[in-house]
Amino acid sequence: MQPILKVYGDRLSQPTRAVIIFCRVNRIDFEEVVVDLFKREHLSPEFKKINPMGQVPAIVDGRFRLFESHAILRYLATVFPGVPDHWYSADLFTRAKIEAILDWHHSNLRRGAATFVLNTVLAPSLGLPSSPEAAKEAEKLLFRSLRMIESMWLKGDSKFLLGNPQLSIADLSLVCEIMQLEVLGDSERDRILGPHEKICSWIQNVKKATGPHFEEAHELLFKVKARRAAKMGSDRSKDLKTASKL
Amino acid sequence: MQPILKVYGDRLSQPTRAVIIFCRVNRIDFEEVVVDLFKREHLSPEFKKINPMGQVPAIVDGRFRLFESHAILRYLATVFPGVPDHWYSADLFTRAKIEAILDWHHSNLRRGAATFVLNTVLAPSLGLPSSPEAAKEAEKLLFRSLRMIESMWLKGDSKFLLGNPQLSIADLSLVCEIMQLEVLGDSERDRILGPHEKICSWIQNVKKATGPHFEEAHELLFKVKARRAAKMGSDRSKDLKTASKL
Ligand SMILES: N[C@@H](CCC(=O)N[C@@H](CS)C(=O)NCC(=O)O)C(=O)O
Ligand SMILES: N[C@@H](CCC(=O)N[C@@H](CS)C(=O)NCC(=O)O)C(=O)O
Repeated sequence: MQPILKVYGDRLSQPTRAVIIFCRVNRIDFEEVVVDLFKREHLSPEFKKINPMGQVPAIVDGRFRLFESHAILRYLATVFPGVPDHWYSADLFTRAKIEAILDWHHSNLRRGAATFVLNTVLAPSLGLPSSPEAAKEAEKLLFRSLRMIESMWLKGDSKFLLGNPQLSIADLSLVCEIMQLEVLGDSERDRILGPHEKICSWIQNVKKATGPHFEEAHELLFKVKARRAAKMGSDRSKDLKTASKL
Repeated sequence: MQPILKVYGDRLSQPTRAVIIFCRVNRIDFEEVVVDLFKREHLSPEFKKINPMGQVPAIVDGRFRLFESHAILRYLATVFPGVPDHWYSADLFTRAKIEAILDWHHSNLRRGAATFVLNTVLAPSLGLPSSPEAAKEAEKLLFRSLRMIESMWLKGDSKFLLGNPQLSIADLSLVCEIMQLEVLGDSERDRILGPHEKICSWIQNVKKATGPHFEEAHELLFKVKARRAAKMGSDRSKDLKTASKL
């Protein structure tokens, strides 16, 4: 019997969610091994044996270990025979364009969005230092990246990136990254995504094409978001109470 | 007749050099179209039609346009039938490992090295603002990345990444990035690379495997380095002269 695929990850991590959604939609059997980032489990010696970089996601497939979500998505799309072609097209030209988006992602959308979330919400809640200058720079890159996606890859009425009628691993990776903005709270998310109509409908298209697995994989993120909103609300009402006593 | 492949780039750009060396070693005929970064030609409306991101390298192959050096290297390795398998192995597992390195590169070695060079040497010489904090952060990431390459992918006596007997597009991309450190001058380069013996012999192995094209593609970089050294020498002797007058 083939040993089952193991996916190491934390659903608060955007690339982890992309891998999990991909497996679910394509009915790839896997065991999810939670590596809790808040508990710093990614830095444990056991996990470093799986991924010496100490980052999620990572997979173990039999004796084969792999990290980097895009490499994992490419691998799964190739090794599991049931995965439809549109995810990672065998057509040379379509695939090359998907690759360009996947490469572009790292130094643009990912760097912008992840650095922004880190330096606004995440670092303070983890007790790490955060830098307002880094947040400002990251915000610029994030906006530039969203504009670029709209003008380069979501031209006209295209439902998915590159005008493709069905989604690819690039759609999934990029949308999971953008979903991370939810933890900023509704008004911040709307300030950033509101002006980008095409991005908003594209997110909906990816959700629909991968539902209900998309929502399921994002449940934890929405829980954290709700907890944060409640905490901020109670902080605010505490502030008001204190203020009213003054 | 098939129209000739056009490679748009500037040899001062590390990913441009990787694409040029790849073509030369594999006897892929191409026309080199210089996009001079110092003259800001990458921001011209003509070049933005080729790559809306305004970055080099980019290629035009017939009616097909592509940017992002890794996507370009994958495409060329696939579309030109004469390219030996080791560059971008068709073996699923070997390829997946090459992909992981290519993905990893962006947020680690590339981000560390390019940000460090920008904030130490490049920005001042371009009249752009530079940040000592950014340089410090980048240096940390650069050292961490070099250590990671040695411990993850250059284990034992391996000549190339992953212990492969021949080089892949990942070796080429990463070594071209590291070569950029030459512009820092010999003593800075030695301070950074000196402690990394395996990295140093790996660079030599990649040079040998791709010579004389490797050296040829790096000529411009060494010219810029020499010019900088001469300028700094004359600045220093001016400083000394001024000092001796005081
Ligand atoms: N490029 C990587 C990024 C992986 C990554 O940054 N993972 C984060 C969570 S989203 C992580 O593990 N961070 C912990 C750390 O870097 O210490 C991928 O796509 O897999
Ligand atoms: N990930 C891209 C990086 C491209 C890139 O950053 N190119 C630089 C030169 S090395 C550039 O064109 N910079 C000009 C700019 O960004 O304005 C690749 O590998 O092709």
